[in-house]
Amino acid sequence: WVGDEQTGHLRLIDQTRLPTEFIEIDCRDVPTVWEAIKLLRVRGAPAIGVAAGYGAVIGARSQGVKDEGTVRKALAEATAYLRTSRPTAVNLFWALDRMDAAAAATPPSNGPALLKRLLHEADAIAEEDRAMCRSIGKFGAELVQAGEGILTHCNAGGLATADYGTALAVIFSAQEQGKHVHVFADETRPLLQGARLTAWELQRRGVPVTLICDNMAAQVMKERKIQKVVVGADRIAANGDAANKIGTYGVALLAKAHGIPFYVAAPSSTFDLSIADGSAIPIEQRDPQEVTHGFGRQTAPAGVSVYNPAFDVTPAELISGIITEKGVIRPVNAGTIREVLAG
Amino acid sequence: WVGDEQTGHLRLIDQTRLPTEFIEIDCRDVPTVWEAIKLLRVRGAPAIGVAAGYGAVIGARSQGVKDEGTVRKALAEATAYLRTSRPTAVNLFWALDRMDAAAAATPPSNGPALLKRLLHEADAIAEEDRAMCRSIGKFGAELVQAGEGILTHCNAGGLATADYGTALAVIFSAQEQGKHVHVFADETRPLLQGARLTAWELQRRGVPVTLICDNMAAQVMKERKIQKVVVGADRIAANGDAANKIGTYGVALLAKAHGIPFYVAAPSSTFDLSIADGSAIPIEQRDPQEVTHGFGRQTAPAGVSVYNPAFDVTPAELISGIITEKGVIRPVNAGTIREVLAG
Repeated sequence: WVGDEQTGHLRLIDQTRLPTEFIEIDCRDVPTVWEAIKLLRVRGAPAIGVAAGYGAVIGARSQGVKDEGTVRKALAEATAYLRTSRPTAVNLFWALDRMDAAAAATPPSNGPALLKRLLHEADAIAEEDRAMCRSIGKFGAELVQAGEGILTHCNAGGLATADYGTALAVIFSAQEQGKHVHVFADETRPLLQGARLTAWELQRRGVPVTLICDNMAAQVMKERKIQKVVVGADRIAANGDAANKIGTYGVALLAKAHGIPFYVAAPSSTFDLSIADGSAIPIEQRDPQEVTHGFGRQTAPAGVSVYNPAFDVTPAELISGIITEKGVIRPVNAGTIREVLAG
Repeated sequence: WVGDEQTGHLRLIDQTRLPTEFIEIDCRDVPTVWEAIKLLRVRGAPAIGVAAGYGAVIGARSQGVKDEGTVRKALAEATAYLRTSRPTAVNLFWALDRMDAAAAATPPSNGPALLKRLLHEADAIAEEDRAMCRSIGKFGAELVQAGEGILTHCNAGGLATADYGTALAVIFSAQEQGKHVHVFADETRPLLQGARLTAWELQRRGVPVTLICDNMAAQVMKERKIQKVVVGADRIAANGDAANKIGTYGVALLAKAHGIPFYVAAPSSTFDLSIADGSAIPIEQRDPQEVTHGFGRQTAPAGVSVYNPAFDVTPAELISGIITEKGVIRPVNAGTIREVLAG
């Protein structure tokens, strides 16, 4: 966020342009924030939550701030609209709920004061996200031994959060502790977040990283190059079933087949205790062109049928532990989840 | 092969240009054949063998055909050179051995007669390949139930052989028998043979096909859309361990986790009984740029380390059966393999 609540705006790295271009976009209206979320310019469950919070601030002032009722109405419209951007990551809804609740909890005063309160709430979401990353990194790094090979899928790094990530926070924190690790990054088709974002983040921070195609993970595990898998999550059900980028479930099965521990790193805001298990998590289906024209060139015959789910659900029994900012949930079940989240 | 042994040439579909362009290349010298194999213009273990056989004919006449000794010497040089094109598929070496053996078995006569004999041998390799495809299709189709969903990885179709393939022969043959099947084709990074070639072949022959990214296979299996996996092979050891396109081993593990039968379809020429198990199969490592600059655009940060093995080895215990032109080997072990191959 750049500037004050009245005239400031949200500045995002356009993640669709990385790694070849580093371009920042300034969001000054709600449709631009909505589009940034929809088109994955900003992505990663925690980062979507932070962006949505600031998007709500931008929306709240969009009809003028003199009249408090107008601000409240504009906020409600903005949060309702932003909810339609993407369906799977629960942090989006969690952050928008917080913005609505903050407004509801603010006693009647005036428009500018309410807007200030809303920016304060969005800042709090971002600030808590930063603290959450550090805490996840600290708890996760305790699980890592020096010299280990760690496989990750998609991007759960700084780009996916307000600070240095969830899954990658574990790696960055281990590195800060002097535990040299080597990361294998799945490229993560169709949108290549692993190749474009994870490899870029790790390289920038000096962590040794080897890029592989998704279908090479089993072979790398067989060669005993991987001692742990650490991934993020977009929504976790009450029993520990975890939705994350498509391919995660397969990696979890391969890890089990090779006896490799599989960890999920995610903040408490990723848990959706209102759903009993993963079968109730909505899975976003995305445009076939992501698969058929993924690299700027047509790579499949015209008119071919494509199945393109953006996420899958890894059942709790394949997850060795969930690393949260409140501690590590292990073993993963409804009881241990409630316990750790209760703090 | 177009024309006679003296002036004819080898015509290949340039598979690197599919599916957007259908371009045939005419090979009139050995370096062009070598390059076509190396750069995957022609690919698929049986097709490489066929191309190498004709490449040997082109090489044998390259120094003139008047003198028989010159033809023999030129043949030996050509087969030695063509052996260096790719390391994993055993059919390459098998076909070149046949060409050398054919020359050795030809009594001294004259250059033109020897050359005619060599073209006859190359034609025989191609003809046997066509018969092999039909036979594999017939045996394999018996395993397929009407209405099944079949997952395949990479391309073991008509483009990979002289006729209608190995793994895809099973599908085409089942289709000819009126067993409607639905194929899920892994796109098969890094070179997308599934997206570019398998989807194209199936679409052309009217077989319903859905393209998925490699990392979606586990999810599609979980949704019970797959009843069988059928893939090809590049080299099979005496115990049944099978080398095939990178990612095959992972698919086999995922199939096992979901209780789905996993079949390999491959001709007897793919077996290398000289090696006891898969650990002795050399695995080709290919250019990192295939991963970082897959399709005309840079998709990973400059200078990133890449691991790019072209093949992996699926252990025999994960293979439900091997479909050969001589019958189905099931269960897969050294004894059943010897038995079926002995005919």
